[in-house]
Amino acid sequence: MFITLEGPEGSGKSSQLPALAEFLRSRGYTVLTTREPGGTPIGDQVRQVLTRMENQGMSPRAETLLFCAARAQLVDQVIRPALARGEVVISDRYADSTLAYQGYGHGNDLAVLRQMLHFATGGLWPELTLLLDVDSAAGLERRRSSGGEWNRLDDYALSFHQRVRQGYLDLARSQPERWVVVDASQPMDAVQQALRQVILRRLEPALS
Amino acid sequence: MFITLEGPEGSGKSSQLPALAEFLRSRGYTVLTTREPGGTPIGDQVRQVLTRMENQGMSPRAETLLFCAARAQLVDQVIRPALARGEVVISDRYADSTLAYQGYGHGNDLAVLRQMLHFATGGLWPELTLLLDVDSAAGLERRRSSGGEWNRLDDYALSFHQRVRQGYLDLARSQPERWVVVDASQPMDAVQQALRQVILRRLEPALS
Repeated sequence: MFITLEGPEGSGKSSQLPALAEFLRSRGYTVLTTREPGGTPIGDQVRQVLTRMENQGMSPRAETLLFCAARAQLVDQVIRPALARGEVVISDRYADSTLAYQGYGHGNDLAVLRQMLHFATGGLWPELTLLLDVDSAAGLERRRSSGGEWNRLDDYALSFHQRVRQGYLDLARSQPERWVVVDASQPMDAVQQALRQVILRRLEPALS
Repeated sequence: MFITLEGPEGSGKSSQLPALAEFLRSRGYTVLTTREPGGTPIGDQVRQVLTRMENQGMSPRAETLLFCAARAQLVDQVIRPALARGEVVISDRYADSTLAYQGYGHGNDLAVLRQMLHFATGGLWPELTLLLDVDSAAGLERRRSSGGEWNRLDDYALSFHQRVRQGYLDLARSQPERWVVVDASQPMDAVQQALRQVILRRLEPALS
């Protein structure tokens, strides 16, 4: 099963992922976790180009294509082989991030982006997408105060991040069979419990 | 006017370009030359990812998207502004390289590539494309013996480079109003004279 975590900056995806994978492993699953952009040596080189502060003159179209390039490499080198081995794959961001950020955020045409994503992913979409939803200002503040990386992408204006959040909520509404929205403003433990529940319900429907 | 030079490895494009630009400047034109992938600081970072020998596991789809990313940046940051200033822009490779290498060479669907190129270029295509045609084996040998860079892309099999050459010839046949094929197996001086003639005939039709 292919699961993705999506959400705006500061939604806590990356903090939740390790405990989530550990929990699933304790239940006997083989779990592979990865993150975008990156997740492969080539993807990590692309990630550096995307995040370097001195690359602030990057054209939105170039940005979109770089994310797609890192993703194509990740799909071919990591995700498809793991799924073929029967593993559970959880990715911190995937193709929906392009729709939210480069589509809703930068105003690129969604239909064109979907064509590009189809090429980049070879048509591979997740079976379950967990949206960690959080107010944009609160999310950015959380990210800033966490003392972690603050990069070129974080540095876009608040209005950009608000369009991204709204985009995510639109995407979730349009495909309710794939998306589950989790309130990420809750304490970390409560978010973790919610994520575990949703995933178990999909992996072990007989138990729920 | 936007002019592109295309051709397989060892066709001599990059050696011809400076003298060609100098000639046009001597006739009073303001000329901007550039090359792909690269031509901008961001594009040069992408070029490094594309050419590093250790990146041999690169997925063909990732490769295609990286070329398109560098191109999108070049179009927005360099080519469109120069055309808007009324300059003659000559690029060493452009979107047709993607059709020849990633399409004919790697076997990606040409229609899908054209959609992606439309996105990457914002719909900007050259008015004149000069194909420096040379036998693939001879071209690779010329490149190898020149003592210049030998990178991951040169290192594809001869059969790949032969498909690329055939692809270029197909593209030229399909749009004869845009393409002119020049025999690049001639001595360098003869190739240079041929290129100058073709360009002058377009820039100064009254003279020919």
